[in-house]
Amino acid sequence: MEILKERIRAESADLGRGTLKVDSFLNHQIDTALMQAIGAELARLFADTQPTKIMTVETGGIAPALATATALSIPLIVARKRRAAGMPRELLQESTLSHTYNQAIDLFVSPEFLSAQDRIVLIDDFLTNAQMMLALCRLAERGGARVVGIGAVIEKTHDGGRAALEELNLPVKALVRIAKIAEGEIEFVD
Amino acid sequence: MEILKERIRAESADLGRGTLKVDSFLNHQIDTALMQAIGAELARLFADTQPTKIMTVETGGIAPALATATALSIPLIVARKRRAAGMPRELLQESTLSHTYNQAIDLFVSPEFLSAQDRIVLIDDFLTNAQMMLALCRLAERGGARVVGIGAVIEKTHDGGRAALEELNLPVKALVRIAKIAEGEIEFVD
Repeated sequence: MEILKERIRAESADLGRGTLKVDSFLNHQIDTALMQAIGAELARLFADTQPTKIMTVETGGIAPALATATALSIPLIVARKRRAAGMPRELLQESTLSHTYNQAIDLFVSPEFLSAQDRIVLIDDFLTNAQMMLALCRLAERGGARVVGIGAVIEKTHDGGRAALEELNLPVKALVRIAKIAEGEIEFVD
Repeated sequence: MEILKERIRAESADLGRGTLKVDSFLNHQIDTALMQAIGAELARLFADTQPTKIMTVETGGIAPALATATALSIPLIVARKRRAAGMPRELLQESTLSHTYNQAIDLFVSPEFLSAQDRIVLIDDFLTNAQMMLALCRLAERGGARVVGIGAVIEKTHDGGRAALEELNLPVKALVRIAKIAEGEIEFVD
Protein backbone atom coordinates (compact mmCIF):
# COMPACT_ATOMS: atom_id res chain seq x y z
CA MET A 1 0.00 0.00 0.00
CA GLU A 2 2.07 2.84 -1.40
CA ILE A 3 0.39 5.83 0.32
CA LEU A 4 0.98 4.15 3.69
CA LYS A 5 4.65 3.50 2.91
CA GLU A 6 5.10 7.13 1.88
CA ARG A 7 3.44 8.35 5.05
CA ILE A 8 5.60 6.11 7.24
CA ARG A 9 8.73 7.32 5.43
CA ALA A 10 7.74 10.98 5.77
CA GLU A 11 6.85 10.83 9.48
CA SER A 12 9.86 8.76 10.51
CA ALA A 13 12.38 10.73 8.46
CA ASP A 14 13.49 13.10 11.22
CA LEU A 15 13.92 10.52 13.93
CA GLY A 16 17.33 9.02 13.34
CA ARG A 17 16.63 6.14 15.71
CA GLY A 18 15.14 2.68 15.60
CA THR A 19 11.59 3.73 16.37
CA LEU A 20 8.80 3.71 13.87
CA LYS A 21 6.81 6.94 14.14
CA VAL A 22 3.16 6.25 13.35
CA ASP A 23 1.40 7.98 16.24
CA SER A 24 0.58 11.06 14.17
CA PHE A 25 -1.69 9.17 11.75
CA LEU A 26 -2.33 5.58 12.92
CA ASN A 27 -3.12 5.46 16.63
CA HIS A 28 -2.56 8.44 18.94
CA GLN A 29 -3.74 10.81 16.22
CA ILE A 30 -5.67 9.23 13.35
CA ASP A 31 -5.76 10.49 9.77
CA THR A 32 -9.36 9.53 9.04
CA ALA A 33 -9.04 9.56 5.23
CA LEU A 34 -5.99 7.29 5.42
CA MET A 35 -7.80 5.05 7.93
CA GLN A 36 -10.73 4.69 5.52
CA ALA A 37 -8.28 3.69 2.77
CA ILE A 38 -6.66 1.18 5.15
CA GLY A 39 -10.07 -0.33 5.95
CA ALA A 40 -11.02 -0.51 2.28
CA GLU A 41 -7.77 -2.27 1.39
CA LEU A 42 -7.99 -4.80 4.26
CA ALA A 43 -11.63 -5.43 3.29
CA ARG A 44 -10.55 -6.08 -0.30
CA LEU A 45 -7.79 -8.48 0.79
CA PHE A 46 -10.14 -10.57 2.97
CA ALA A 47 -13.42 -10.36 1.02
CA ASP A 48 -12.92 -13.85 -0.47
CA THR A 49 -12.71 -15.41 3.02
CA GLN A 50 -16.39 -14.42 3.43
CA PRO A 51 -16.04 -13.14 7.01
CA THR A 52 -19.17 -12.69 9.15
CA LYS A 53 -17.36 -10.59 11.79
CA ILE A 54 -14.08 -8.78 12.37
CA MET A 55 -12.40 -9.20 15.75
CA THR A 56 -9.68 -7.06 17.34
CA VAL A 57 -8.39 -6.11 20.78
CA GLU A 58 -8.38 -2.72 22.45
CA THR A 59 -6.83 -0.17 21.96
CA GLY A 60 -4.64 0.18 18.87
CA GLY A 61 -6.60 -2.30 16.78
CA ILE A 62 -9.97 -0.59 17.11
CA ALA A 63 -9.59 2.05 14.38
CA PRO A 64 -8.29 -0.19 11.53
CA ALA A 65 -10.65 -3.00 12.55
CA LEU A 66 -13.65 -0.65 12.60
CA ALA A 67 -12.67 0.77 9.20
CA THR A 68 -12.37 -2.77 7.80
CA ALA A 69 -15.65 -4.00 9.31
CA THR A 70 -17.41 -0.85 8.06
CA ALA A 71 -16.08 -1.44 4.53
CA LEU A 72 -17.35 -5.05 4.69
CA SER A 73 -20.69 -4.07 6.34
CA ILE A 74 -20.20 -6.63 9.12
CA PRO A 75 -19.99 -6.26 12.94
CA LEU A 76 -16.77 -5.72 14.88
CA ILE A 77 -15.98 -7.50 18.16
CA VAL A 78 -13.52 -5.68 20.45
CA ALA A 79 -11.85 -8.06 22.91
CA ARG A 80 -11.35 -6.40 26.29
CA LYS A 81 -8.21 -6.36 28.43
CA ARG A 82 -10.22 -6.11 31.64
CA ARG A 83 -13.64 -7.03 32.91
CA ALA A 84 -15.76 -3.91 32.42
CA ALA A 85 -18.81 -2.94 34.43
CA GLY A 86 -21.90 -4.44 32.85
CA MET A 87 -20.13 -7.38 31.20
CA PRO A 88 -21.76 -10.76 31.80
CA ARG A 89 -20.33 -12.98 34.55
CA GLU A 90 -19.50 -15.77 32.10
CA LEU A 91 -16.77 -14.56 29.76
CA LEU A 92 -14.43 -16.31 27.37
CA GLN A 93 -10.90 -15.66 28.60
CA GLU A 94 -7.36 -16.11 27.28
CA SER A 95 -3.96 -14.87 28.43
CA THR A 96 -0.93 -13.71 26.52
CA LEU A 97 2.17 -11.59 26.88
CA SER A 98 1.98 -8.00 25.60
CA HIS A 99 4.75 -7.30 23.09
CA THR A 100 4.46 -3.56 23.72
CA TYR A 101 4.52 -3.64 27.51
CA ASN A 102 6.21 -7.02 28.08
CA GLN A 103 3.67 -8.07 30.69
CA ALA A 104 0.98 -10.73 30.96
CA ILE A 105 -2.46 -9.58 29.91
CA ASP A 106 -5.87 -11.23 29.96
CA LEU A 107 -8.32 -10.96 27.09
CA PHE A 108 -12.08 -11.23 27.52
CA VAL A 109 -14.94 -11.69 25.08
CA SER A 110 -18.59 -12.15 25.85
CA PRO A 111 -19.65 -15.58 24.49
CA GLU A 112 -22.91 -14.20 23.06
CA PHE A 113 -21.06 -12.59 20.15
CA LEU A 114 -19.47 -15.78 18.80
CA SER A 115 -21.15 -18.83 17.30
CA ALA A 116 -20.39 -21.84 15.08
CA GLN A 117 -21.75 -19.85 12.14
CA ASP A 118 -19.11 -17.15 12.52
CA ARG A 119 -16.15 -16.75 10.17
CA ILE A 120 -13.78 -14.32 11.88
CA VAL A 121 -11.04 -12.15 10.41
CA LEU A 122 -8.65 -10.79 13.06
CA ILE A 123 -7.37 -7.25 12.47
CA ASP A 124 -4.76 -5.38 14.51
CA ASP A 125 -2.57 -2.34 13.91
CA PHE A 126 0.71 -4.26 14.23
CA LEU A 127 1.85 -7.80 13.55
CA THR A 128 4.99 -8.35 15.61
CA ASN A 129 5.49 -11.72 17.36
CA ALA A 130 1.82 -12.68 16.76
CA GLN A 131 1.19 -13.72 20.37
CA MET A 132 -1.84 -11.38 20.56
CA MET A 133 -3.20 -12.79 17.29
CA LEU A 134 -2.78 -16.35 18.61
CA ALA A 135 -4.62 -15.43 21.82
CA LEU A 136 -7.45 -13.90 19.76
CA CYS A 137 -7.59 -17.14 17.70
CA ARG A 138 -7.96 -19.18 20.89
CA LEU A 139 -10.68 -16.79 22.12
CA ALA A 140 -12.63 -17.12 18.86
CA GLU A 141 -12.32 -20.91 18.98
CA ARG A 142 -13.53 -21.00 22.60
CA GLY A 143 -16.65 -19.27 21.29
CA GLY A 144 -17.07 -21.99 18.65
CA ALA A 145 -16.22 -19.65 15.77
CA ARG A 146 -13.73 -20.22 12.97
CA VAL A 147 -10.91 -17.78 12.22
CA VAL A 148 -10.53 -17.43 8.44
CA GLY A 149 -7.88 -14.72 8.13
CA ILE A 150 -5.42 -12.50 9.97
CA GLY A 151 -4.60 -8.95 8.92
CA ALA A 152 -2.48 -6.07 10.17
CA VAL A 153 -1.70 -2.57 9.01
CA ILE A 154 2.06 -2.90 9.64
CA GLU A 155 4.12 -6.07 9.98
CA LYS A 156 7.54 -6.01 11.58
CA THR A 157 9.01 -9.06 9.91
CA HIS A 158 11.96 -9.48 12.28
CA ASP A 159 9.63 -10.27 15.21
CA GLY A 160 8.76 -13.68 13.77
CA GLY A 161 4.98 -13.34 13.77
CA ARG A 162 4.42 -14.88 10.35
CA ALA A 163 6.33 -18.03 11.29
CA ALA A 164 4.38 -18.30 14.55
CA LEU A 165 1.10 -18.19 12.60
CA GLU A 166 2.17 -20.69 9.94
CA GLU A 167 0.66 -23.75 11.61
CA LEU A 168 -2.80 -22.17 11.45
CA ASN A 169 -2.67 -22.39 7.66
CA LEU A 170 -4.61 -19.14 7.22
CA PRO A 171 -4.15 -16.13 4.94
CA VAL A 172 -1.96 -13.61 6.81
CA LYS A 173 -1.83 -10.16 5.21
CA ALA A 174 -0.18 -6.87 6.13
CA LEU A 175 -0.52 -3.62 4.22
CA VAL A 176 3.15 -2.81 4.67
CA ARG A 177 5.97 -5.05 5.84
CA ILE A 178 9.02 -3.59 7.53
CA ALA A 179 12.24 -5.58 7.83
CA LYS A 180 14.45 -3.09 9.59
CA ILE A 181 14.66 0.45 10.91
CA ALA A 182 18.12 1.91 11.39
CA GLU A 183 19.24 5.53 11.57
CA GLY A 184 15.92 6.80 10.29
CA GLU A 185 16.04 4.52 7.25
CA ILE A 186 13.12 2.13 6.93
CA GLU A 187 13.63 -1.04 4.93
CA PHE A 188 10.35 -2.31 3.47
CA VAL A 189 9.80 -5.88 2.29
CA ASP A 190 7.80 -6.28 -0.91
CA MET B 1 -31.98 9.68 17.22
CA GLU B 2 -34.85 7.26 16.91
CA ILE B 3 -33.00 4.18 15.55
CA LEU B 4 -30.63 4.36 18.50
CA LYS B 5 -33.51 4.61 21.00
CA GLU B 6 -35.19 1.60 19.42
CA ARG B 7 -31.99 -0.40 19.55
CA ILE B 8 -31.41 0.46 23.21
CA ARG B 9 -35.01 -0.51 24.04
CA ALA B 10 -34.75 -3.81 22.16
CA GLU B 11 -31.41 -4.87 23.67
CA SER B 12 -32.27 -3.88 27.23
CA ALA B 13 -35.78 -5.34 27.19
CA ASP B 14 -34.90 -8.70 28.71
CA LEU B 15 -32.74 -7.42 31.53
CA GLY B 16 -35.13 -6.39 34.28
CA ARG B 17 -32.42 -4.52 36.17
CA GLY B 18 -30.89 -1.07 36.28
CA THR B 19 -28.19 -1.70 33.70
CA LEU B 20 -28.21 -0.32 30.22
CA LYS B 21 -27.27 -3.03 27.74
CA VAL B 22 -25.36 -1.49 24.84
CA ASP B 23 -22.39 -3.83 24.56
CA SER B 24 -23.90 -5.76 21.65
CA PHE B 25 -23.84 -2.74 19.29
CA LEU B 26 -21.94 0.23 20.82
CA ASN B 27 -18.69 -0.91 22.40
CA HIS B 28 -17.88 -4.59 23.03
CA GLN B 29 -19.50 -5.53 19.74
CA ILE B 30 -20.08 -2.71 17.26
CA ASP B 31 -22.86 -2.51 14.68
CA THR B 32 -20.86 -0.75 11.99
CA ALA B 33 -23.86 0.57 10.03
CA LEU B 34 -25.35 2.06 13.21
CA MET B 35 -21.93 3.48 14.15
CA GLN B 36 -21.70 5.21 10.75
CA ALA B 37 -25.15 6.72 11.36
CA ILE B 38 -24.04 7.86 14.84
CA GLY B 39 -20.97 9.51 13.34
CA ALA B 40 -22.99 11.21 10.62
CA GLU B 41 -25.47 12.58 13.15
CA LEU B 42 -22.79 13.87 15.56
CA ALA B 43 -20.99 15.43 12.58
CA ARG B 44 -24.22 17.16 11.56
CA LEU B 45 -24.83 18.47 15.09
CA PHE B 46 -21.33 19.98 15.38
CA ALA B 47 -20.64 21.08 11.78
CA ASP B 48 -21.45 24.72 12.60
CA THR B 49 -18.77 24.82 15.32
CA GLN B 50 -16.21 24.40 12.49
CA PRO B 51 -14.04 21.85 14.31
CA THR B 52 -10.49 21.18 13.07
CA LYS B 53 -10.11 17.99 15.13
CA ILE B 54 -12.15 15.54 17.19
CA MET B 55 -10.70 14.38 20.52
CA THR B 56 -11.69 11.38 22.62
CA VAL B 57 -10.18 9.02 25.18
CA GLU B 58 -9.54 5.30 24.88
CA THR B 59 -11.38 2.91 24.82
CA GLY B 60 -15.14 3.35 24.52
CA GLY B 61 -14.96 6.70 22.80
CA ILE B 62 -12.79 5.60 19.88
CA ALA B 63 -15.51 4.15 17.63
CA PRO B 64 -18.05 7.01 17.79
CA ALA B 65 -15.27 9.61 17.68
CA LEU B 66 -13.67 7.96 14.64
CA ALA B 67 -17.04 7.76 12.89
CA THR B 68 -17.66 11.45 13.62
CA ALA B 69 -14.20 12.59 12.53
CA THR B 70 -14.49 10.48 9.36
CA ALA B 71 -17.84 12.10 8.53
CA LEU B 72 -16.28 15.55 9.04
CA SER B 73 -13.04 14.63 7.17
CA ILE B 74 -10.88 15.85 10.05
CA PRO B 75 -8.28 14.07 12.26
CA LEU B 76 -9.07 12.29 15.52
CA ILE B 77 -6.88 12.57 18.63
CA VAL B 78 -7.12 9.63 21.07
CA ALA B 79 -6.00 10.62 24.57
CA ARG B 80 -4.13 7.77 26.26
CA LYS B 81 -4.64 6.41 29.76
CA ARG B 82 -1.00 5.34 30.04
CA ARG B 83 2.33 6.29 28.60
CA ALA B 84 2.84 4.01 25.61
CA ALA B 85 6.15 2.91 24.17
CA GLY B 86 7.29 5.39 21.56
CA MET B 87 5.42 8.38 23.00
CA PRO B 88 7.51 11.53 23.40
CA ARG B 89 8.96 12.30 26.82
CA GLU B 90 7.09 15.61 27.08
CA LEU B 91 3.37 14.89 27.31
CA LEU B 92 0.37 16.95 28.29
CA GLN B 93 -1.15 15.30 31.35
CA GLU B 94 -4.36 15.59 33.35
CA SER B 95 -5.96 13.45 36.04
CA THR B 96 -9.56 12.57 36.73
CA LEU B 97 -11.71 9.95 38.44
CA SER B 98 -13.12 7.20 36.25
CA HIS B 99 -16.90 6.99 36.57
CA THR B 100 -16.89 3.39 35.34
CA TYR B 101 -14.14 2.06 37.57
CA ASN B 102 -14.26 4.65 40.39
CA GLN B 103 -10.49 5.09 40.40
CA ALA B 104 -8.06 7.87 39.57
CA ILE B 105 -6.78 7.82 36.02
CA ASP B 106 -4.23 9.89 34.16
CA LEU B 107 -4.76 11.13 30.63
CA PHE B 108 -1.93 11.85 28.21
CA VAL B 109 -1.76 13.67 24.90
CA SER B 110 1.28 14.43 22.82
CA PRO B 111 1.57 18.26 22.55
CA GLU B 112 2.44 18.10 18.82
CA PHE B 113 -1.19 17.36 17.92
CA LEU B 114 -2.67 20.50 19.51
CA SER B 115 -2.16 24.14 18.56
CA ALA B 116 -3.76 27.57 18.95
CA GLN B 117 -5.38 27.07 15.53
CA ASP B 118 -7.30 24.01 16.69
CA ARG B 119 -11.03 24.00 17.38
CA ILE B 120 -11.75 20.73 19.19
CA VAL B 121 -15.00 18.82 19.55
CA LEU B 122 -14.87 16.19 22.31
CA ILE B 123 -16.76 12.96 21.61
CA ASP B 124 -17.29 10.05 24.00
CA ASP B 125 -19.69 7.10 24.14
CA PHE B 126 -21.28 8.20 27.43
CA LEU B 127 -21.92 11.48 29.17
CA THR B 128 -22.37 10.69 32.87
CA ASN B 129 -20.86 13.03 35.48
CA ALA B 130 -18.70 14.74 32.80
CA GLN B 131 -15.47 14.47 34.78
CA MET B 132 -13.76 12.79 31.80
CA MET B 133 -15.00 15.53 29.45
CA LEU B 134 -13.70 18.22 31.84
CA ALA B 135 -10.29 16.51 31.98
CA LEU B 136 -10.20 16.36 28.16
CA CYS B 137 -11.06 20.09 28.08
CA ARG B 138 -8.13 20.85 30.39
CA LEU B 139 -5.85 18.69 28.21
CA ALA B 140 -6.90 20.53 25.05
CA GLU B 141 -6.36 23.89 26.76
CA ARG B 142 -2.91 22.84 27.94
CA GLY B 143 -2.11 22.29 24.28
CA GLY B 144 -3.29 25.81 23.47
CA ALA B 145 -6.37 24.60 21.59
CA ARG B 146 -9.96 25.72 22.03
CA VAL B 147 -12.79 23.28 22.77
CA VAL B 148 -15.87 24.28 20.75
CA GLY B 149 -18.30 21.47 21.51
CA ILE B 150 -18.96 18.33 23.54
CA GLY B 151 -20.88 15.34 22.24
CA ALA B 152 -21.85 11.89 23.44
CA VAL B 153 -23.83 8.98 22.08
CA ILE B 154 -25.77 8.41 25.30
CA GLU B 155 -26.32 10.84 28.18
CA LYS B 156 -27.41 9.59 31.58
CA THR B 157 -29.08 12.75 32.83
CA HIS B 158 -29.22 11.76 36.51
CA ASP B 159 -25.41 11.79 36.76
CA GLY B 160 -25.28 15.58 36.55
CA GLY B 161 -22.85 15.91 33.65
CA ARG B 162 -24.74 18.68 31.87
CA ALA B 163 -24.76 20.89 34.97
CA ALA B 164 -21.04 20.27 35.50
CA LEU B 165 -20.34 21.44 31.93
CA GLU B 166 -22.56 24.53 32.12
CA GLU B 167 -19.81 26.96 33.11
CA LEU B 168 -17.92 26.17 29.89
CA ASN B 169 -20.76 27.75 27.90
CA LEU B 170 -20.37 25.28 25.03
CA PRO B 171 -22.85 23.29 22.96
CA VAL B 172 -23.36 19.92 24.70
CA LYS B 173 -25.22 17.33 22.60
CA ALA B 174 -26.19 13.72 23.13
CA LEU B 175 -27.94 11.52 20.58
CA VAL B 176 -30.15 9.98 23.23
CA ARG B 177 -30.74 11.10 26.80
CA ILE B 178 -31.77 8.62 29.46
CA ALA B 179 -33.33 9.78 32.72
CA LYS B 180 -33.92 6.49 34.44
CA ILE B 181 -33.70 2.73 34.03
CA ALA B 182 -35.86 0.64 36.31
CA GLU B 183 -37.08 -2.94 35.95
CA GLY B 184 -36.07 -3.05 32.29
CA GLU B 185 -37.99 0.13 31.45
CA ILE B 186 -35.91 2.93 30.02
CA GLU B 187 -37.15 6.47 30.42
CA PHE B 188 -35.84 8.72 27.65
CA VAL B 189 -35.73 12.52 27.90
CA ASP B 190 -36.69 14.42 24.77
